Amino acid sequence: MKMTLPIKVLGISGSLRKISTNMSALEYMESQAPKLGIDFEIASLQDVPFFNPDTEDDKNDATIKLLEQMKAADAFVFASPEYNYSFTPALKNALDWGSRLPGNEGFKGKAASLISAGGGFGGGRSQYHVRQVAVFLDLFVLNKPEVFLSSFDGTFDKESLELVSEHAQESLVKQLEALKELSLKLNPKEENPKEETPIEIMA
Amino acid sequence: MKMTLPIKVLGISGSLRKISTNMSALEYMESQAPKLGIDFEIASLQDVPFFNPDTEDDKNDATIKLLEQMKAADAFVFASPEYNYSFTPALKNALDWGSRLPGNEGFKGKAASLISAGGGFGGGRSQYHVRQVAVFLDLFVLNKPEVFLSSFDGTFDKESLELVSEHAQESLVKQLEALKELSLKLNPKEENPKEETPIEIMA
Amino acid sequence: MKMTLPIKVLGISGSLRKISTNMSALEYMESQAPKLGIDFEIASLQDVPFFNPDTEDDKNDATIKLLEQMKAADAFVFASPEYNYSFTPALKNALDWGSRLPGNEGFKGKAASLISAGGGFGGGRSQYHVRQVAVFLDLFVLNKPEVFLSSFDGTFDKESLELVSEHAQESLVKQLEALKELSLKLNPKEENPKEETPIEIMA
Amino acid sequence: MKMTLPIKVLGISGSLRKISTNMSALEYMESQAPKLGIDFEIASLQDVPFFNPDTEDDKNDATIKLLEQMKAADAFVFASPEYNYSFTPALKNALDWGSRLPGNEGFKGKAASLISAGGGFGGGRSQYHVRQVAVFLDLFVLNKPEVFLSSFDGTFDKESLELVSEHAQESLVKQLEALKELSLKLNPKEENPKEETPIEIMA
Repeated sequence: MKMTLPIKVLGISGSLRKISTNMSALEYMESQAPKLGIDFEIASLQDVPFFNPDTEDDKNDATIKLLEQMKAADAFVFASPEYNYSFTPALKNALDWGSRLPGNEGFKGKAASLISAGGGFGGGRSQYHVRQVAVFLDLFVLNKPEVFLSSFDGTFDKESLELVSEHAQESLVKQLEALKELSLKLNPKEENPKEETPIEIMA
Repeated sequence: MKMTLPIKVLGISGSLRKISTNMSALEYMESQAPKLGIDFEIASLQDVPFFNPDTEDDKNDATIKLLEQMKAADAFVFASPEYNYSFTPALKNALDWGSRLPGNEGFKGKAASLISAGGGFGGGRSQYHVRQVAVFLDLFVLNKPEVFLSSFDGTFDKESLELVSEHAQESLVKQLEALKELSLKLNPKEENPKEETPIEIMA
Repeated sequence: MKMTLPIKVLGISGSLRKISTNMSALEYMESQAPKLGIDFEIASLQDVPFFNPDTEDDKNDATIKLLEQMKAADAFVFASPEYNYSFTPALKNALDWGSRLPGNEGFKGKAASLISAGGGFGGGRSQYHVRQVAVFLDLFVLNKPEVFLSSFDGTFDKESLELVSEHAQESLVKQLEALKELSLKLNPKEENPKEETPIEIMA
Repeated sequence: MKMTLPIKVLGISGSLRKISTNMSALEYMESQAPKLGIDFEIASLQDVPFFNPDTEDDKNDATIKLLEQMKAADAFVFASPEYNYSFTPALKNALDWGSRLPGNEGFKGKAASLISAGGGFGGGRSQYHVRQVAVFLDLFVLNKPEVFLSSFDGTFDKESLELVSEHAQESLVKQLEALKELSLKLNPKEENPKEETPIEIMA
């Protein structure tokens, strides 16, 4: 029987708010990940300072942790709120920090997906800017399903901002499944190769 | 010994000129393809009319041929001249026609790469617009190597517009190799499985 | 009393369909223009061929007429349907033709506005690509109000595609007013100075 | 004789480095501004924290100063380094803070221009992302001359990063002149209207 090893996905939200629709969407993904064979972790950007080439060698703990998480991740989900028709500084800053890892070890050739929650186009305009950044980072961003979540139509609970719409929940699960599939195509995980090799042909 | 089957790549140039730098770059790729295990064909857009939903059922021969080539292709190279900071109508029109194939059979989940030749940024601005179109088409566009060819610095022969710069030639070959690798990851080609199975280990 | 001379606005729709939501929106603008002091004309792209530098000197009548209309226009409204996450070839082709006028006489320093009708984001993604093209054309595109019209929610009559939503009608009128204001700031129209000077103050 | 009042221009650089090519370019503009009738000031983003809606009411001094400078400005020059194919978090963050001023008093209807210094396309890819942000901010960004400065070809002194290329200096001066012209068209400055009124018609 063929078993797929879990892939590690790092979720990064561009919102710094204590509770936010974008973070809620990531948390829903995190809750569903185990049954999809995904080890899902959510990064914290709260204490990651602006990247500045002059001082990049003095990384604080939050930055060091983020970079370790990026290196360990097989794939990424970026939750990208739209501020003024583009992504937030916090999200771009995380990507800029990650881009400085030697050999582009954080991103090179990995799969990523994008979600956004917001008014207007559900944050959609920001996603295409992240996609252009991903070209340089050498991340392969999933094309479909694209996920744009409205903050206005009952997708989220008004008080807790919990993701409550079943339709939205399904679209997030579908995206995670597609992300896993893309990640495994791009970067296959060997499944216990040591245990497989014992198969021998005896003459 | 493991042998990879050739993949079929369709090259599409957005220039309608009789001789053009963008077409020359595709022709150079075509000349190198056989040794890379690539079956490279170049489409002609000369007689493909504007897509119009009112009349799309009356396709002319050029359009029918283009659509057949798109269906048969494993992957694409788009040579995208920059007109007024974006792609040309001819290139977009080919993509629009292709997008109408049932089940998105022309593009769905296939790999693509982009090259451009021109002044300014070597046609670069047009490439990011094609990438946004590719999201809807569900094409996975190669991130690296990006290829931007200058029309001004000896990359092309001034008379024939033949691609003569060795550096440019190498970058095109590298892109083709990377395109093939991405295509095979996304859509593995089985290598005559029927003919392989007879291999038996005789004791 | 100060009177403003009418400004000439050229409307260009990127749809080639016989009846289309984008054309309907332009036609509504045309119907309202006289009361706003706007002389509104709608261009026809039906017989304008693909721009090709090899043959650009042989312009057909449709192209010649389009270029004359562009030269005469003080400002533009582009109705930009979204095909595959960008503008249509027909619209871009009109802009490419216009960009070839000597001295950029068609566009240089003029005001423009954008509308789009469609599914998804109401055609929104296409508008930002047109805006990038406008940078090279030296067109100043109005920022607000942006107009995105849904094809699905009763904005248009289902049979005739006539624009029937009052809210949409108001937004189009507001955009026309803002376009006129921007156009006059960028390129003031002198109000028949020769005919005005006879006004004398008689003691 | 008609005299134009000076306009106030605020320069904002997206680099946080102590010395940077983008800041040098702004400083050159500042040095030339007085002779162009421009009162040029450069903002400091060093201590402006990430915008966070949860804490935006607790502004520190650096943020308060930046917002006052934005309100007072007639026009803006954004020096936009390209990080990973887009703008820097620091620049976007300044724009996000500014966008929260009541009535959009910082940006509404004002003129802006863009410069960038860097490798590759001279930072060019970042400029088109800033332009999309400007749509929401209701800033009118100058189309021409676009300024892309190379960090590699002697534009800047290698040690001091001072802008030394005469060609680059000229393009910055031309852009400032064009910015002033656009700003005055969009928002005319009245020149001592009280002193002008004495013109009376005596019967």
